[in-house]
Amino acid sequence: MFKAVIGAEKLKDSIESISTLVDEARFRLTPQGLSVKAVDPSNVAMVSFDLARDAFDSFEATEGELGIDLTKLNGVMEMADKSDVIELELDETAHKLIVRMRGLAYTMSLLDPSSIRKEPKVPTLDLPAHIVIRGEDIKRAVKAAEKVSDYMSMGVRGDTFFMEAQGDTDSVLVELKKDQLIELQASDAKSLFSLDYLSDLSKILAKSNEVTIDLGKDFPLKIRIKIAQGHGDVSYMLAPRVESE
Amino acid sequence: MFKAVIGAEKLKDSIESISTLVDEARFRLTPQGLSVKAVDPSNVAMVSFDLARDAFDSFEATEGELGIDLTKLNGVMEMADKSDVIELELDETAHKLIVRMRGLAYTMSLLDPSSIRKEPKVPTLDLPAHIVIRGEDIKRAVKAAEKVSDYMSMGVRGDTFFMEAQGDTDSVLVELKKDQLIELQASDAKSLFSLDYLSDLSKILAKSNEVTIDLGKDFPLKIRIKIAQGHGDVSYMLAPRVESE
Amino acid sequence: MFKAVIGAEKLKDSIESISTLVDEARFRLTPQGLSVKAVDPSNVAMVSFDLARDAFDSFEATEGELGIDLTKLNGVMEMADKSDVIELELDETAHKLIVRMRGLAYTMSLLDPSSIRKEPKVPTLDLPAHIVIRGEDIKRAVKAAEKVSDYMSMGVRGDTFFMEAQGDTDSVLVELKKDQLIELQASDAKSLFSLDYLSDLSKILAKSNEVTIDLGKDFPLKIRIKIAQGHGDVSYMLAPRVESE
Repeated sequence: MFKAVIGAEKLKDSIESISTLVDEARFRLTPQGLSVKAVDPSNVAMVSFDLARDAFDSFEATEGELGIDLTKLNGVMEMADKSDVIELELDETAHKLIVRMRGLAYTMSLLDPSSIRKEPKVPTLDLPAHIVIRGEDIKRAVKAAEKVSDYMSMGVRGDTFFMEAQGDTDSVLVELKKDQLIELQASDAKSLFSLDYLSDLSKILAKSNEVTIDLGKDFPLKIRIKIAQGHGDVSYMLAPRVESE
Repeated sequence: MFKAVIGAEKLKDSIESISTLVDEARFRLTPQGLSVKAVDPSNVAMVSFDLARDAFDSFEATEGELGIDLTKLNGVMEMADKSDVIELELDETAHKLIVRMRGLAYTMSLLDPSSIRKEPKVPTLDLPAHIVIRGEDIKRAVKAAEKVSDYMSMGVRGDTFFMEAQGDTDSVLVELKKDQLIELQASDAKSLFSLDYLSDLSKILAKSNEVTIDLGKDFPLKIRIKIAQGHGDVSYMLAPRVESE
Repeated sequence: MFKAVIGAEKLKDSIESISTLVDEARFRLTPQGLSVKAVDPSNVAMVSFDLARDAFDSFEATEGELGIDLTKLNGVMEMADKSDVIELELDETAHKLIVRMRGLAYTMSLLDPSSIRKEPKVPTLDLPAHIVIRGEDIKRAVKAAEKVSDYMSMGVRGDTFFMEAQGDTDSVLVELKKDQLIELQASDAKSLFSLDYLSDLSKILAKSNEVTIDLGKDFPLKIRIKIAQGHGDVSYMLAPRVESE
């Protein structure tokens, strides 16, 4: 069983943090909360999402799994105002999720979880450089980088975190010294990433005042944010593109 | 002859309430005001519009009929600010309508009224259920219903007014009890309507704090609103779609 | 050499006032400031732009010429907030312009000035009518005129400045008497201009509280505005279209 009540803004932010990578996802239910692990269709990016029961006004669930069409759920959430309270209820017999808001009930058919790609194993990585930065600063660098290239490198040089893109004729360089960052644990690092993914992610990250980035040398990038007023954790892992030089 | 002065917002609202159904209309002039009766090209919806001379800052007219291209007049009104005062004057010799606002004069050729579809006869219907509701509540239900179907039913069950749409897998139900409505004269009723029409109408209705709905069983829907600060009456009639079951 | 610091809004307005006519331009540098003279690809409109060193927070330049891709520079400026301070620096060796804003450096390759169309000679014209008007009033007339025609005439009749467009069935006339203008030096004048050009120009002019217009009889139009808080001068010249009657 599953029955929960949550503020619309928290739920919207939660769904968007997952739907930026996948259109459908398996939501794992436990009495302690909700979680999702998913990898994008190209196997380049991975999301690991956890929303604790404390994020909800009320939350009751037994162990289970829900297959959810995120595009559809995003569409339903568009009808909610930020201040609305959303009620979610699983109709186990009909295999539907009922989403209620201010007198409106949307009955959404669930997907068969086994039809959705399996949960990925999240690898443990040893990433030496560690940066805490405002999400807005990432979005701005990504937007500028997109003007000159399809790829952007992120790295640490001495006491400076940098994001850099090299185009055929033009280039973009953003440098943030330790005192312009919230935190920096320096260690030489540099990896190249696809701007396609960074662009989508940066829209989510821009809402966050503290984004934690872990970096290595030609290694995946790990990005972590808190959502739902600290009751949710989202972490992304993005594979590097190896520079052909 | 026809010469009148009116606030831009009142005139905009008036024209839009008609142009939601038809692109051209015959405006009937009398010394008491303006009126339009029109039916949409598919014969599914009808509008009956009356704007009393009190809605105008000044109004002088003899009996007559003007054929007006509403798309064009909407375009002219887009140039006006809400607070502008609009002067309308008929140039009978040239068969043109002059629309003046803040030093700008737009001279618009009139259409031959006989080239525009005849005024429909508005049928008198005996619709037992009677609801007064905020326009925003209709718009919200219509927007949700469009996500799942092309049709929406409206009805009354006991003390509850409902709007409902059934899709192949998903469904939407909005229920408003008597105390969530401005007024309810209950009587069992349910009819199905095309969301194409309801969607256009709901944009007009959303501006209105009080929308009066009359409903029957598989009968047309009648919707009435006041416009122009109470000096104008607009009523729509929408044919039901018979459910094939 | 060239190194300068300027408020983002002033720089944006400057670039847009030129890019409304041409995509690439030669910027002439002197120790006293920047200037551009350019003619649009169809030889119909000309811009003459001067930005004094006083417009900058700091300005150092030797005589020189920069070939700039304005579309690209507009794109870079989109990333700046209005209140940002922009640093421009010429890298002479690499033949690049570095645009810096809040930790972000955009390195833009310059165009070979000789590949850009030569600076036009600005003709001296004897235009007897002289009008000073709010930019918004021009934009409004242009927007209305576009609804009925591709051309608009501008002229002076007695004490009245007029803008007029004649369509096949409809027409637009805007008349502004001396007391509705900021200034009028009357002299009979009337010339016809392409709305394609006036439409683009009017977006620039609309930001200006005082637009100076010089007019003659079937003669080019001269339009002058101040930009960058009075430290910049932009003047446009637009060829008339001879009426075929």
